[in-house]
Parts: sequence; C-alpha cells; structure tokens
Amino acid sequence: MLEAGLYLIPTQLSNVELDRVLPAHNIEVVRGIRHFVVESLREARRFLKKCDRNIDIDSLTFNELNEHSDLSDTAALEALLAPIAHGEPVGVISDAGCPAVADPGADLVAIAQRRNYKVFPLVGPSSILMSLMASGFNGQSFAFLGYLPVDSQARQARLKEMTRRIEREHQTQIFIEAPYRNNQLIADLASRLPAGMRLCVASDITGEKQSIVTRTMAQWKQARYDYHKIPTIFLLY
Amino acid sequence: MLEAGLYLIPTQLSNVELDRVLPAHNIEVVRGIRHFVVESLREARRFLKKCDRNIDIDSLTFNELNEHSDLSDTAALEALLAPIAHGEPVGVISDAGCPAVADPGADLVAIAQRRNYKVFPLVGPSSILMSLMASGFNGQSFAFLGYLPVDSQARQARLKEMTRRIEREHQTQIFIEAPYRNNQLIADLASRLPAGMRLCVASDITGEKQSIVTRTMAQWKQARYDYHKIPTIFLLY
Repeated sequence: MLEAGLYLIPTQLSNVELDRVLPAHNIEVVRGIRHFVVESLREARRFLKKCDRNIDIDSLTFNELNEHSDLSDTAALEALLAPIAHGEPVGVISDAGCPAVADPGADLVAIAQRRNYKVFPLVGPSSILMSLMASGFNGQSFAFLGYLPVDSQARQARLKEMTRRIEREHQTQIFIEAPYRNNQLIADLASRLPAGMRLCVASDITGEKQSIVTRTMAQWKQARYDYHKIPTIFLLY
Repeated sequence: MLEAGLYLIPTQLSNVELDRVLPAHNIEVVRGIRHFVVESLREARRFLKKCDRNIDIDSLTFNELNEHSDLSDTAALEALLAPIAHGEPVGVISDAGCPAVADPGADLVAIAQRRNYKVFPLVGPSSILMSLMASGFNGQSFAFLGYLPVDSQARQARLKEMTRRIEREHQTQIFIEAPYRNNQLIADLASRLPAGMRLCVASDITGEKQSIVTRTMAQWKQARYDYHKIPTIFLLY
C-alpha cells in the first residue's frame, strides 16, 4: 500500500508509448491511488487507461484543477487533500509533463506542505529540462521565464534584461510562446538580438518529429523552418 | 539500430532500482551504444552493469569528461564525437542525474550542435526539477543558480538580488551547497532572510530517506534538522 501523501505524476509530452518516457514505478504508483486531482478529466482518464487498460475508472474520484479554478479558495483546495488526512494517497496529473512546473498544481502542493503532508514527485519528461540538456547552453545557471510579453515595448525591455543576465551571469534563458506564434517569435528574436547570440529551438520533444537545434541569430535569419502549432520551447545563451 | 547522434543518458540519484527512476526505453538505448563519454569510469561501468548485467563492458569504449578535463581543448572534445561522423551513436553518462544540467557535458553538446549532429536527451531524475515540483513554489518562473558564494559579503549581495527576484519577478530561486555545509547554510539563511520567506529543503531525492520540506525562515529557526553530508537542494520563495 502507498504511503499517504500527494503524488505528482508526470504524463507524456507526445503520443508515444509510456515506457519511453516514464519509469515502470510510476505505473505501480498510479495503480495504488484512488483519488486524483487533474488538469482535465478527459486527458487524465486517457492517461490512466494507457497506464493500465484494466483500470476501473469508475471506482476512482477525480477533481479538476486548472486555469478555471479559483486558486484563492483555499478551503476548496484543502478539500482536495482530505483523503491524505485519512491515510490515503492523492495523485496530481497534468495534461502534459510535470505537475506544478509550468503547469497547474503548485498551489495545491503549497497547501500540502503547509499541512506537513508528504509530497512525492515522480520522474517524467520535462521540456524545460530536456531542451536545456540538449541545447549545449549553461546548465550550471539557468532560468525559466514562462511566456515573453506580447507588447513590443515590454518585450524589448524583457529581452534587454535577459541579454544582461546571459552576459553578466552566464544564465541560460528559457521561455515559451503560444504555438501558433512560434515562427513569428523566431523572426522577431532574430531581428532584435545580437547576431552572435545563440537560440536553441526545441520542438516536439520526445515525439516522432523531435527537433532540437541551436544556431546563432545570424544563422536563424538565413534558416528555413516551420514550427507552426508544434509545441516548442526556446532557449537563449 | 540507433540513429547516429549524441545521447544524453541520465543516471539514478540514489541507490534504487533503475525502474523506479528511468524509463525502460533508456535501457534499450544504452544497449545500442558502444562509445561513451562519462563523468567517471567507475560510476559509468557500475551504471551499465545495473542496466544490463550481461553487458560486455570490454567491447565498449569510454572517455572521461569531468572537472579535470581541459574544456578549452576543442579538438579533444571533437574527437569524442568522432563516431557520430561514422554513423554511430555516442552516449554521455554523468555520475548522478541528467548530463549537462548542473553536471559536465554541456560543452560537448555545444560542439555537437555546432556540427549539426542530432542530440537526444533522455528522461531521468533531476533534483532541480523534482524539488521544484514538490516545493509548492512558483513553477511558472524559476532560476537555478548553482552554488551560493561562500564569502559572507558576496553571499549577502547574492541573497539580496535573489530576494529582489522573488519579490518583483515571483521567480523561485534554486541553489545547492557542498553537502558537509548543508546545516550551516540553513542556519545562515534563517539568520539573514526575512522571517516570512519560505525555504524548501529537499534531500535524498528518490532515495529511501527522501525528505522535501517547505517552511518559513521563522520555522526553520525553531526546527530540528540534520542534512549533514546528505545530497540536498535548496529553494527560496
């Protein structure tokens, strides 16, 4: 039987067999949990069926926690953790990747920590970590910033600060964009940043069309590419 | 047969069964590689034996790449990648965790990228990512900084800048310490930082004595703890 606590269960980033990206242990953990907090019911059910097609979905409880949730409603969040007080494990499943990292879940984990519940992070694919590994950029110092500002002036200010941190702190800068704006973002970066600065574009990580390419801005200006609507992450150094 | 390219192969962080922390796919990849660049020969051989105890170690080639290597010797680094030009895969194995992230390997990856070789990051345990997941801190914006300065004044300046980034940018700050100074570091942080700031101490991640605890500085001041010589990572928010 699993120890009571909050289990953070990563899911696949792309449509691959689970044993390509998740340890066998994770499947055992999933089998031992009856209460789940999920980013979306549909994706979570699909993931659980993929973990074990004999799983009895109807015997499980699901609560959604996502961008529509009221995170200021602490009582509602605490209620999601109620099984732990009764000695049961609760699992958190986000739609793709690792819960609580660039994904919902951190607020729930914060409450679990405040209650002194045990929190168990499981191993799984993270586009942030995997792109950093494959970029060739500094892995001793790096920052993930989420989305860049859309507004041109605010973006310029952010890029200036990022450039400063690359130059002075040797800190790799990692960020994302809405997938339908990927191509525009690359063109925009190439027009705004120094020709010698390097940009790594990592797309469809773990997927069949995985591509992780590092080039200078000058090279990106010349390059042909099409990342339109493909999940992609960007790194500067 | 594996595609030619540079494979970044994570290893376990603690002495556990590999299927707890690595996807089955990784073992298949390892079986398909004859040329390895490793942080230490001894740990890499031990890891490969754990992947497959029938593996014929003597048929494999190993080159060490670690803090004693001359990273400015580009020709020597390029030589490590020579098998790729001949259509063969090369594997990178660090002693614990993910190659090229807070570990050697990034310089080799940078050369592979410059040569337009394919780079394949595999999934595995990262203390940075797993501690962030379990901390309850902001996972939409975070930075890993490596070691804090040892010098008291330099450390004070760094802590001031980290505090600024927590307050203004809501950026989780992650760092490490030499394991024999873990206890001193916590006491030092508790004496220097605001009482309400939260510190997560994550130790022996994936191990039998895993402990991931978030407390305010005021609470850490009162708490009893002993992380002496245990691999530990620290997060502030």
